[in-house]
Amino acid sequence: MTERLTGIKACVFDAYGTLFDFNSAVARHREAIGPQAERLSEMWRGKQISYTWLRSLAGTYAPFWQVTGEALDHCLEACGVTAAGIRDRLMEAYLHLDPFPEVPAMLAALRAGGMRTAILSNGDPQMLGAVVRNTGLAPLFDALYSADAVKVFKTDHRVYRLATDGLGLAPHEICFLSSNGWDAHGAAHFGFQVCWINRTGQARERLPGRLTRELTSLQALPSLVLP
Amino acid sequence: MTERLTGIKACVFDAYGTLFDFNSAVARHREAIGPQAERLSEMWRGKQISYTWLRSLAGTYAPFWQVTGEALDHCLEACGVTAAGIRDRLMEAYLHLDPFPEVPAMLAALRAGGMRTAILSNGDPQMLGAVVRNTGLAPLFDALYSADAVKVFKTDHRVYRLATDGLGLAPHEICFLSSNGWDAHGAAHFGFQVCWINRTGQARERLPGRLTRELTSLQALPSLVLP
Repeated sequence: MTERLTGIKACVFDAYGTLFDFNSAVARHREAIGPQAERLSEMWRGKQISYTWLRSLAGTYAPFWQVTGEALDHCLEACGVTAAGIRDRLMEAYLHLDPFPEVPAMLAALRAGGMRTAILSNGDPQMLGAVVRNTGLAPLFDALYSADAVKVFKTDHRVYRLATDGLGLAPHEICFLSSNGWDAHGAAHFGFQVCWINRTGQARERLPGRLTRELTSLQALPSLVLP
Repeated sequence: MTERLTGIKACVFDAYGTLFDFNSAVARHREAIGPQAERLSEMWRGKQISYTWLRSLAGTYAPFWQVTGEALDHCLEACGVTAAGIRDRLMEAYLHLDPFPEVPAMLAALRAGGMRTAILSNGDPQMLGAVVRNTGLAPLFDALYSADAVKVFKTDHRVYRLATDGLGLAPHEICFLSSNGWDAHGAAHFGFQVCWINRTGQARERLPGRLTRELTSLQALPSLVLP
């Protein structure tokens, strides 16, 4: 039923939405935000990602921290959220996102099985460093690859190539994990073996790139890729 | 109060959302679609645009007609809309979108004043040709420029350059009109004088590119650009 993936030499994870729950930022300040909290969280994430695509297309890269703040400014205005200091508190919360519950044990199992692990994210190095440090997960990764190194965001292939170059592996030797359907398809089009972590039962994206697996969480990953 | 724009030699319009109301497609089939109609229309537009950005980023261009259909497939599934034949009916409706009410008289006034007019759109030539023909507006444009000519979508600068090259004008001699904030900013970053037609009171986008004006409809355009 869960046929193993063959020839996997490293597992490379998207960060936001895949390992770390971006909704946990708004959740921490739900009372201060009020009834717009859920809408704000969803809109913030969508706008943040839109801005990465648009800046990549127009050749106007800016670090993900800046883009995340600009997206938040738009969404706070759009949602009419004016609570004092809320911008700074939400940005700070973005450095302390909760990992999804299965993540620590899953990573430990991969490492115990000798699998190499890395993050490949739009997040700039300071953001990524902070979130893995703050969650205690830093020792469980061999490397953190940031789009900042190539000054363009996913799904530009130069971003995915950071992982193959950094790990010295061919694309098909890497199992890439993302909860973001668009990222999963972009990574599959690049050549990774991709598991789409469809945590919330989203309809599949109609985009190029053939997904290898669709899973509802990362829990089963060790059994899929370890020998 | 409404200080005129100077040195404008042509007005170039985005099509969908700016001249033509994409909500009018779903509106025509509201009964068949049911209570999800409004959500479907908004999601369809958002997904369609996302797919253009993602295909541009990954270098996997496909004609806007195909992308529009793929976005619709995703959204029909996501919204659980299964009415018989609804995909074909909505795609057909996309070729018969209503122009916004002020559009015909505004275009006629520009032409009467000697202003050159064009459309610059992600839409492929067949789609654009059909919608201007079906709305009777075809005689009011000097040219229809389609992203299909460069096989990439907005906000890639190669798309905006179709208008400067085609009209033989410098960017600042063109007044570009778009209801899509992201398109307005992309076009402003390219160098057009841009009026953002903010029909629905959206919060402004935090993106590069300085907008020249923000208007609530196209009605005032002739008085802004004609001598």
